[in-house]
Amino acid sequence: MSKIELNKRQEQIVEIVKENGPITGEQIADHLHLTRATLRPDLAILTMAGFLEARPRVGYYYTGKQDTQLLAEELKKLQVKDHQSIPIVVSVNVSVYDAICTMFLEDVGTLFVVDDQTYLVGVLSRKDLLRASLGKQDLTSIPVNIIMTRMPNITTCRQDDLIVDVANALIDKQIDALPVVKDTGNGFEVIGRITKTNMTKILVSFANDV
Amino acid sequence: MSKIELNKRQEQIVEIVKENGPITGEQIADHLHLTRATLRPDLAILTMAGFLEARPRVGYYYTGKQDTQLLAEELKKLQVKDHQSIPIVVSVNVSVYDAICTMFLEDVGTLFVVDDQTYLVGVLSRKDLLRASLGKQDLTSIPVNIIMTRMPNITTCRQDDLIVDVANALIDKQIDALPVVKDTGNGFEVIGRITKTNMTKILVSFANDV
Repeated sequence: MSKIELNKRQEQIVEIVKENGPITGEQIADHLHLTRATLRPDLAILTMAGFLEARPRVGYYYTGKQDTQLLAEELKKLQVKDHQSIPIVVSVNVSVYDAICTMFLEDVGTLFVVDDQTYLVGVLSRKDLLRASLGKQDLTSIPVNIIMTRMPNITTCRQDDLIVDVANALIDKQIDALPVVKDTGNGFEVIGRITKTNMTKILVSFANDV
Repeated sequence: MSKIELNKRQEQIVEIVKENGPITGEQIADHLHLTRATLRPDLAILTMAGFLEARPRVGYYYTGKQDTQLLAEELKKLQVKDHQSIPIVVSVNVSVYDAICTMFLEDVGTLFVVDDQTYLVGVLSRKDLLRASLGKQDLTSIPVNIIMTRMPNITTCRQDDLIVDVANALIDKQIDALPVVKDTGNGFEVIGRITKTNMTKILVSFANDV
Protein backbone atom coordinates (compact mmCIF):
# COMPACT_ATOMS: atom_id res chain seq x y z
CA MET A 1 0.00 0.00 0.00
CA SER A 2 1.14 3.53 -0.69
CA LYS A 3 -0.22 7.01 -0.84
CA ILE A 4 -1.25 8.54 -4.09
CA GLU A 5 -1.57 12.29 -4.48
CA LEU A 6 -4.35 13.50 -6.70
CA ASN A 7 -4.10 16.51 -8.95
CA LYS A 8 -6.70 19.26 -8.82
CA ARG A 9 -8.89 17.82 -11.56
CA GLN A 10 -8.84 14.36 -10.01
CA GLU A 11 -9.94 15.85 -6.70
CA GLN A 12 -12.77 17.65 -8.46
CA ILE A 13 -13.88 14.40 -10.03
CA VAL A 14 -13.88 12.64 -6.65
CA GLU A 15 -16.01 15.46 -5.20
CA ILE A 16 -18.47 15.28 -8.09
CA VAL A 17 -18.83 11.51 -7.75
CA LYS A 18 -19.20 11.81 -3.96
CA GLU A 19 -22.07 14.27 -4.42
CA ASN A 20 -23.77 12.80 -7.46
CA GLY A 21 -22.71 9.18 -7.80
CA PRO A 22 -23.55 6.85 -9.41
CA ILE A 23 -22.80 9.10 -12.34
CA THR A 24 -21.61 8.39 -15.88
CA GLY A 25 -18.34 9.60 -17.36
CA GLU A 26 -20.35 11.74 -19.77
CA GLN A 27 -22.10 13.49 -16.87
CA ILE A 28 -18.85 14.06 -14.99
CA ALA A 29 -17.42 15.62 -18.15
CA ASP A 30 -20.47 17.92 -18.38
CA HIS A 31 -19.93 19.08 -14.79
CA LEU A 32 -16.38 20.06 -15.64
CA HIS A 33 -17.14 21.46 -19.13
CA LEU A 34 -14.66 19.00 -20.59
CA THR A 35 -14.93 16.12 -23.02
CA ARG A 36 -15.24 12.50 -21.91
CA ALA A 37 -11.96 11.76 -23.75
CA THR A 38 -10.06 14.37 -21.73
CA LEU A 39 -11.18 12.75 -18.49
CA ARG A 40 -10.39 9.19 -19.52
CA PRO A 41 -6.86 9.04 -17.98
CA ASP A 42 -8.04 10.64 -14.72
CA LEU A 43 -10.96 8.23 -14.40
CA ALA A 44 -8.61 5.32 -15.07
CA ILE A 45 -6.25 6.41 -12.30
CA LEU A 46 -9.05 7.05 -9.82
CA THR A 47 -10.55 3.66 -10.51
CA MET A 48 -7.26 1.77 -10.32
CA ALA A 49 -6.29 3.53 -7.11
CA GLY A 50 -9.57 2.52 -5.53
CA PHE A 51 -11.14 5.95 -5.09
CA LEU A 52 -13.93 5.18 -7.53
CA GLU A 53 -15.56 2.07 -8.80
CA ALA A 54 -17.17 1.82 -12.20
CA ARG A 55 -20.16 -0.39 -12.88
CA PRO A 56 -21.29 -0.99 -16.49
CA ARG A 57 -24.54 0.80 -17.38
CA VAL A 58 -24.61 2.42 -13.90
CA GLY A 59 -21.61 4.69 -13.76
CA TYR A 60 -18.94 5.71 -11.28
CA TYR A 61 -19.46 5.71 -7.54
CA TYR A 62 -17.29 6.64 -4.59
CA THR A 63 -15.70 3.85 -2.55
CA GLY A 64 -14.50 6.12 0.24
CA LYS A 65 -11.36 4.41 1.44
CA GLN A 66 -9.82 6.72 3.98
CA ASP A 67 -6.41 7.46 5.44
CA THR A 68 -7.69 6.80 8.93
CA GLN A 69 -8.47 3.19 8.02
CA LEU A 70 -4.86 2.78 7.07
CA LEU A 71 -3.77 4.35 10.33
CA ALA A 72 -5.95 1.92 12.27
CA GLU A 73 -4.40 -1.00 10.41
CA GLU A 74 -0.90 0.20 11.26
CA LEU A 75 -1.76 0.70 14.94
CA LYS A 76 -3.31 -2.73 15.17
CA LYS A 77 0.01 -4.35 14.30
CA LEU A 78 1.76 -3.07 17.46
CA GLN A 79 2.40 -5.50 20.28
CA VAL A 80 3.19 -4.96 23.95
CA LYS A 81 6.58 -6.66 23.78
CA ASP A 82 7.98 -4.03 21.42
CA HIS A 83 6.97 -1.06 23.59
CA GLN A 84 7.02 -2.19 27.23
CA SER A 85 9.25 -0.78 29.98
CA ILE A 86 11.12 -2.49 32.80
CA PRO A 87 8.86 -3.33 35.77
CA ILE A 88 9.75 -2.09 39.25
CA VAL A 89 8.63 -4.46 41.99
CA VAL A 90 8.54 -4.28 45.78
CA SER A 91 7.98 -7.02 48.32
CA VAL A 92 4.56 -7.30 49.91
CA ASN A 93 6.31 -6.87 53.28
CA VAL A 94 7.66 -3.31 52.78
CA SER A 95 6.07 -0.21 54.31
CA VAL A 96 4.18 2.50 52.45
CA TYR A 97 7.08 4.84 53.26
CA ASP A 98 9.58 2.49 51.60
CA ALA A 99 7.31 2.08 48.58
CA ILE A 100 7.13 5.87 48.11
CA CYS A 101 10.94 6.05 48.36
CA THR A 102 11.29 3.28 45.74
CA MET A 103 8.87 5.15 43.48
CA PHE A 104 11.07 8.25 43.66
CA LEU A 105 14.36 6.39 43.35
CA GLU A 106 13.18 4.47 40.29
CA ASP A 107 11.18 7.42 38.97
CA VAL A 108 8.07 5.41 38.08
CA GLY A 109 4.37 6.05 38.63
CA THR A 110 3.37 2.46 39.39
CA LEU A 111 4.95 -0.30 41.48
CA PHE A 112 4.11 -3.99 41.32
CA VAL A 113 3.95 -5.91 44.58
CA VAL A 114 5.22 -9.50 44.68
CA ASP A 115 5.13 -12.28 47.26
CA ASP A 116 8.05 -14.43 48.46
CA GLN A 117 7.93 -16.50 45.25
CA THR A 118 8.06 -13.21 43.23
CA TYR A 119 4.52 -13.75 41.95
CA LEU A 120 2.31 -10.71 41.41
CA VAL A 121 -0.01 -9.99 44.35
CA GLY A 122 -0.65 -6.24 44.10
CA VAL A 123 -0.28 -2.89 42.34
CA LEU A 124 0.55 0.48 43.89
CA SER A 125 -0.15 3.70 42.01
CA ARG A 126 0.91 7.23 43.00
CA LYS A 127 -2.75 7.79 43.74
CA ASP A 128 -2.85 4.85 46.20
CA LEU A 129 0.25 6.13 48.00
CA LEU A 130 -0.99 9.73 48.05
CA ARG A 131 -4.31 8.59 49.55
CA ALA A 132 -2.45 6.68 52.26
CA SER A 133 -0.33 9.71 53.04
CA LEU A 134 -3.45 11.76 53.82
CA GLY A 135 -4.07 9.67 56.92
CA LYS A 136 -2.58 10.64 60.25
CA GLN A 137 -0.67 7.37 60.63
CA ASP A 138 3.09 6.92 60.43
CA LEU A 139 3.79 5.75 56.86
CA THR A 140 6.72 3.60 58.00
CA SER A 141 4.33 1.45 60.05
CA ILE A 142 1.71 0.74 57.34
CA PRO A 143 2.50 -2.30 55.16
CA VAL A 144 1.76 -1.89 51.45
CA ASN A 145 -0.60 -4.86 51.42
CA ILE A 146 -3.15 -2.74 53.36
CA ILE A 147 -3.45 -0.17 50.58
CA MET A 148 -2.53 -1.95 47.36
CA THR A 149 -4.94 -3.08 44.64
CA ARG A 150 -4.79 -6.86 44.91
CA MET A 151 -5.36 -9.92 42.75
CA PRO A 152 -7.82 -10.74 41.21
CA ASN A 153 -8.69 -7.04 40.76
CA ILE A 154 -5.50 -6.32 38.82
CA THR A 155 -5.76 -5.81 35.07
CA THR A 156 -2.79 -7.54 33.44
CA CYS A 157 -1.57 -8.06 29.91
CA ARG A 158 0.70 -10.44 27.99
CA GLN A 159 3.68 -9.67 25.76
CA ASP A 160 1.83 -10.58 22.60
CA ASP A 161 -1.25 -8.51 23.43
CA LEU A 162 -2.00 -5.63 21.10
CA ILE A 163 -1.07 -2.10 22.10
CA VAL A 164 -4.55 -0.88 21.14
CA ASP A 165 -6.15 -3.32 23.57
CA VAL A 166 -3.85 -2.15 26.36
CA ALA A 167 -4.57 1.51 25.51
CA ASN A 168 -8.27 0.72 25.70
CA ALA A 169 -7.84 -0.96 29.10
CA LEU A 170 -5.86 2.02 30.48
CA ILE A 171 -8.67 4.39 29.47
CA ASP A 172 -11.52 2.08 30.52
CA LYS A 173 -10.10 1.26 33.94
CA GLN A 174 -8.69 4.77 34.46
CA ILE A 175 -5.24 3.53 35.39
CA ASP A 176 -1.75 4.64 34.39
CA ALA A 177 -0.03 1.30 33.89
CA LEU A 178 -0.51 -2.44 33.44
CA PRO A 179 1.88 -5.18 34.48
CA VAL A 180 3.03 -7.41 31.63
CA VAL A 181 2.87 -10.93 33.04
CA LYS A 182 3.80 -14.50 32.21
CA ASP A 183 1.59 -17.23 33.63
CA THR A 184 3.82 -19.85 35.27
CA GLY A 185 0.94 -22.07 36.32
CA ASN A 186 1.52 -21.21 39.99
CA GLY A 187 1.19 -17.44 39.58
CA PHE A 188 1.99 -14.45 37.42
CA GLU A 189 5.61 -13.49 36.95
CA VAL A 190 5.95 -9.74 36.21
CA ILE A 191 8.09 -9.30 33.11
CA GLY A 192 7.20 -5.76 32.03
CA ARG A 193 5.31 -2.54 32.57
CA ILE A 194 3.25 -0.69 29.99
CA THR A 195 2.04 2.84 30.67
CA LYS A 196 0.44 5.95 29.24
CA THR A 197 4.00 7.19 28.79
CA ASN A 198 4.65 4.27 26.41
CA MET A 199 1.45 5.22 24.54
CA THR A 200 2.62 8.83 24.23
CA LYS A 201 6.00 7.63 22.95
CA ILE A 202 4.25 5.54 20.29
CA LEU A 203 2.41 8.66 19.08
CA VAL A 204 5.70 10.57 18.95
CA SER A 205 7.49 7.76 17.12
CA PHE A 206 4.77 7.58 14.48
CA ALA A 207 4.85 11.33 13.98
CA ASN A 208 8.63 11.35 13.58
CA ASP A 209 8.70 8.42 11.19
CA VAL A 210 9.07 10.39 7.97
CA MET B 1 -4.87 10.51 -0.70
CA SER B 2 -6.02 6.94 -0.46
CA LYS B 3 -4.62 3.52 0.01
CA ILE B 4 -4.08 1.24 -2.93
CA GLU B 5 -3.77 -2.48 -2.47
CA LEU B 6 -1.36 -4.25 -4.74
CA ASN B 7 -1.96 -7.69 -6.16
CA LYS B 8 0.65 -10.40 -5.80
CA ARG B 9 2.34 -9.72 -9.14
CA GLN B 10 2.50 -6.00 -8.47
CA GLU B 11 4.16 -6.70 -5.12
CA GLN B 12 6.68 -8.96 -6.86
CA ILE B 13 7.47 -6.19 -9.32
CA VAL B 14 8.02 -3.70 -6.49
CA GLU B 15 10.39 -6.16 -4.79
CA ILE B 16 12.33 -6.75 -8.02
CA VAL B 17 12.70 -3.01 -8.63
CA LYS B 18 13.72 -2.41 -5.01
CA GLU B 19 16.47 -5.00 -5.35
CA ASN B 20 17.64 -4.33 -8.89
CA GLY B 21 16.50 -0.82 -9.88
CA PRO B 22 17.02 1.00 -12.11
CA ILE B 23 15.80 -1.84 -14.27
CA THR B 24 14.01 -1.96 -17.64
CA GLY B 25 10.55 -3.39 -18.21
CA GLU B 26 12.17 -6.10 -20.34
CA GLN B 27 14.40 -7.15 -17.46
CA ILE B 28 11.52 -7.18 -14.97
CA ALA B 29 9.59 -9.41 -17.39
CA ASP B 30 12.59 -11.78 -17.57
CA HIS B 31 12.67 -12.06 -13.78
CA LEU B 32 9.03 -13.10 -13.75
CA HIS B 33 9.22 -15.28 -16.88
CA LEU B 34 6.49 -13.16 -18.45
CA THR B 35 6.32 -10.94 -21.50
CA ARG B 36 6.75 -7.19 -21.37
CA ALA B 37 3.21 -6.81 -22.76
CA THR B 38 1.70 -8.82 -19.91
CA LEU B 39 3.35 -6.52 -17.37
CA ARG B 40 2.34 -3.26 -19.04
CA PRO B 41 -0.88 -2.66 -17.01
CA ASP B 42 0.88 -3.46 -13.72
CA LEU B 43 3.77 -1.14 -14.46
CA ALA B 44 1.32 1.60 -15.40
CA ILE B 45 -0.52 1.26 -12.09
CA LEU B 46 2.66 1.13 -10.03
CA THR B 47 4.00 4.23 -11.76
CA MET B 48 0.78 6.21 -11.47
CA ALA B 49 0.34 5.27 -7.82
CA GLY B 50 3.84 6.54 -7.06
CA PHE B 51 5.50 3.25 -6.11
CA LEU B 52 7.83 3.34 -9.08
CA GLU B 53 9.18 6.01 -11.32
CA ALA B 54 10.18 5.42 -14.90
CA ARG B 55 12.98 7.32 -16.58
CA PRO B 56 13.49 7.02 -20.36
CA ARG B 57 16.57 5.00 -21.33
CA VAL B 58 17.24 4.22 -17.63
CA GLY B 59 14.33 2.15 -16.47
CA TYR B 60 12.14 1.81 -13.41
CA TYR B 61 13.28 2.68 -9.89
CA TYR B 62 11.64 2.51 -6.49
CA THR B 63 10.37 5.72 -4.90
CA GLY B 64 9.68 4.16 -1.52
CA LYS B 65 6.68 6.01 -0.19
CA GLN B 66 5.58 4.23 2.96
CA ASP B 67 2.46 3.82 5.07
CA THR B 68 4.22 5.26 8.08
CA GLN B 69 4.74 8.54 6.24
CA LEU B 70 1.02 8.75 5.76
CA LEU B 71 0.47 8.01 9.42
CA ALA B 72 2.85 10.82 10.36
CA GLU B 73 0.98 13.21 8.10
CA GLU B 74 -2.33 12.31 9.74
CA LEU B 75 -0.94 12.74 13.23
CA LYS B 76 0.56 16.09 12.35
CA LYS B 77 -2.87 17.50 11.61
CA LEU B 78 -4.11 17.10 15.21
CA GLN B 79 -4.36 20.19 17.37
CA VAL B 80 -4.55 20.64 21.13
CA LYS B 81 -7.99 22.31 21.05
CA ASP B 82 -9.67 19.17 19.72
CA HIS B 83 -8.27 16.87 22.39
CA GLN B 84 -7.78 18.91 25.58
CA SER B 85 -9.53 18.31 28.92
CA ILE B 86 -10.96 20.75 31.45
CA PRO B 87 -8.29 22.29 33.69
CA ILE B 88 -8.59 22.03 37.46
CA VAL B 89 -7.09 25.01 39.27
CA VAL B 90 -6.40 25.84 42.92
CA SER B 91 -5.52 29.14 44.51
CA VAL B 92 -1.90 29.77 45.44
CA ASN B 93 -3.09 30.27 49.03
CA VAL B 94 -4.41 26.73 49.67
CA SER B 95 -2.54 24.11 51.71
CA VAL B 96 -0.90 20.97 50.34
CA TYR B 97 -3.59 18.99 52.19
CA ASP B 98 -6.38 20.87 50.40
CA ALA B 99 -4.61 20.43 47.06
CA ILE B 100 -4.42 16.65 47.57
CA CYS B 101 -8.14 16.61 48.47
CA THR B 102 -8.97 18.60 45.31
CA MET B 103 -6.91 16.16 43.25
CA PHE B 104 -8.99 13.25 44.58
CA LEU B 105 -12.31 15.04 44.32
CA GLU B 106 -11.66 16.05 40.72
CA ASP B 107 -9.83 12.81 39.92
CA VAL B 108 -6.95 14.44 38.04
CA GLY B 109 -3.20 13.90 38.16
CA THR B 110 -2.17 17.55 37.79
CA LEU B 111 -3.46 20.80 39.31
CA PHE B 112 -2.72 24.29 38.05
CA VAL B 113 -2.10 27.00 40.62
CA VAL B 114 -3.42 30.50 39.96
CA ASP B 115 -2.99 33.87 41.67
CA ASP B 116 -5.72 36.33 42.72
CA GLN B 117 -6.15 37.48 39.09
CA THR B 118 -6.52 33.80 38.08
CA TYR B 119 -3.24 33.88 36.15
CA LEU B 120 -1.09 30.75 36.08
CA VAL B 121 1.67 30.79 38.71
CA GLY B 122 2.35 27.10 39.35
CA VAL B 123 1.78 23.42 38.62
CA LEU B 124 1.29 20.58 41.11
CA SER B 125 1.74 16.97 40.06
CA ARG B 126 0.91 13.86 42.11
CA LYS B 127 4.66 13.43 42.39
CA ASP B 128 5.09 16.91 43.94
CA LEU B 129 2.35 16.22 46.46
CA LEU B 130 3.66 12.76 47.27
CA ARG B 131 7.14 14.18 47.87
CA ALA B 132 5.70 16.77 50.24
CA SER B 133 3.80 14.10 52.14
CA LEU B 134 7.05 12.25 52.90
CA GLY B 135 8.10 15.10 55.20
CA LYS B 136 7.19 15.06 58.85
CA GLN B 137 5.28 18.34 58.66
CA ASP B 138 1.53 18.81 58.95
CA LEU B 139 0.24 19.00 55.34
CA THR B 140 -2.52 21.43 56.33
CA SER B 141 0.10 24.00 57.33
CA ILE B 142 2.24 23.92 54.15
CA PRO B 143 1.06 26.30 51.39
CA VAL B 144 1.23 24.88 47.86
CA ASN B 145 3.49 27.70 46.69
CA ILE B 146 6.35 26.13 48.68
CA ILE B 147 6.27 22.90 46.68
CA MET B 148 4.81 23.79 43.27
CA THR B 149 6.75 24.11 40.03
CA ARG B 150 6.55 27.83 39.31
CA MET B 151 6.72 30.20 36.35
CA PRO B 152 8.89 30.54 34.28
CA ASN B 153 9.75 26.82 34.70
CA ILE B 154 6.30 25.68 33.55
CA THR B 155 5.98 24.19 30.08
CA THR B 156 2.76 25.50 28.55
CA CYS B 157 1.00 25.09 25.22
CA ARG B 158 -1.61 26.95 23.14
CA GLN B 159 -4.89 25.68 21.70
CA ASP B 160 -3.56 25.68 18.16
CA ASP B 161 -0.34 23.86 19.00
CA LEU B 162 0.11 20.44 17.44
CA ILE B 163 -0.58 17.31 19.46
CA VAL B 164 2.73 15.82 18.31
CA ASP B 165 4.65 18.78 19.75
CA VAL B 166 2.83 18.42 23.07
CA ALA B 167 3.48 14.66 23.09
CA ASN B 168 7.15 15.38 22.50
CA ALA B 169 7.22 17.91 25.35
CA LEU B 170 5.54 15.46 27.75
CA ILE B 171 8.20 12.84 26.98
CA ASP B 172 11.15 15.28 26.93
CA LYS B 173 10.25 17.00 30.19
CA GLN B 174 9.03 13.77 31.83
CA ILE B 175 5.73 15.28 32.92
CA ASP B 176 2.15 14.02 32.81
CA ALA B 177 0.29 17.16 31.73
CA LEU B 178 0.63 20.63 30.24
CA PRO B 179 -1.64 23.60 30.88
CA VAL B 180 -3.27 25.02 27.76
CA VAL B 181 -2.96 28.78 28.15
CA LYS B 182 -4.09 32.02 26.55
CA ASP B 183 -1.73 34.98 26.85
CA THR B 184 -3.73 37.99 28.06
CA GLY B 185 -0.76 40.33 28.04
CA ASN B 186 -0.73 40.48 31.84
CA GLY B 187 -0.41 36.75 32.41
CA PHE B 188 -1.48 33.30 31.26
CA GLU B 189 -5.10 32.33 31.62
CA VAL B 190 -5.48 28.52 31.97
CA ILE B 191 -8.07 27.32 29.47
CA GLY B 192 -7.28 23.61 29.22
CA ARG B 193 -5.26 20.61 30.30
CA ILE B 194 -3.60 18.11 28.01
CA THR B 195 -2.21 14.86 29.38
CA LYS B 196 -0.78 11.46 28.59
CA THR B 197 -4.35 10.21 29.05
CA ASN B 198 -5.42 12.41 26.12
CA MET B 199 -2.54 10.94 24.09
CA THR B 200 -3.65 7.40 24.94
CA LYS B 201 -7.22 8.30 23.92
CA ILE B 202 -5.94 9.58 20.58
CA LEU B 203 -4.25 6.21 19.95
CA VAL B 204 -7.48 4.40 20.82
CA SER B 205 -9.60 6.67 18.63
CA PHE B 206 -7.31 6.10 15.65
CA ALA B 207 -7.38 2.35 16.17
CA ASN B 208 -11.18 2.30 16.36
CA ASP B 209 -11.68 4.52 13.32
CA VAL B 210 -12.53 1.82 10.80
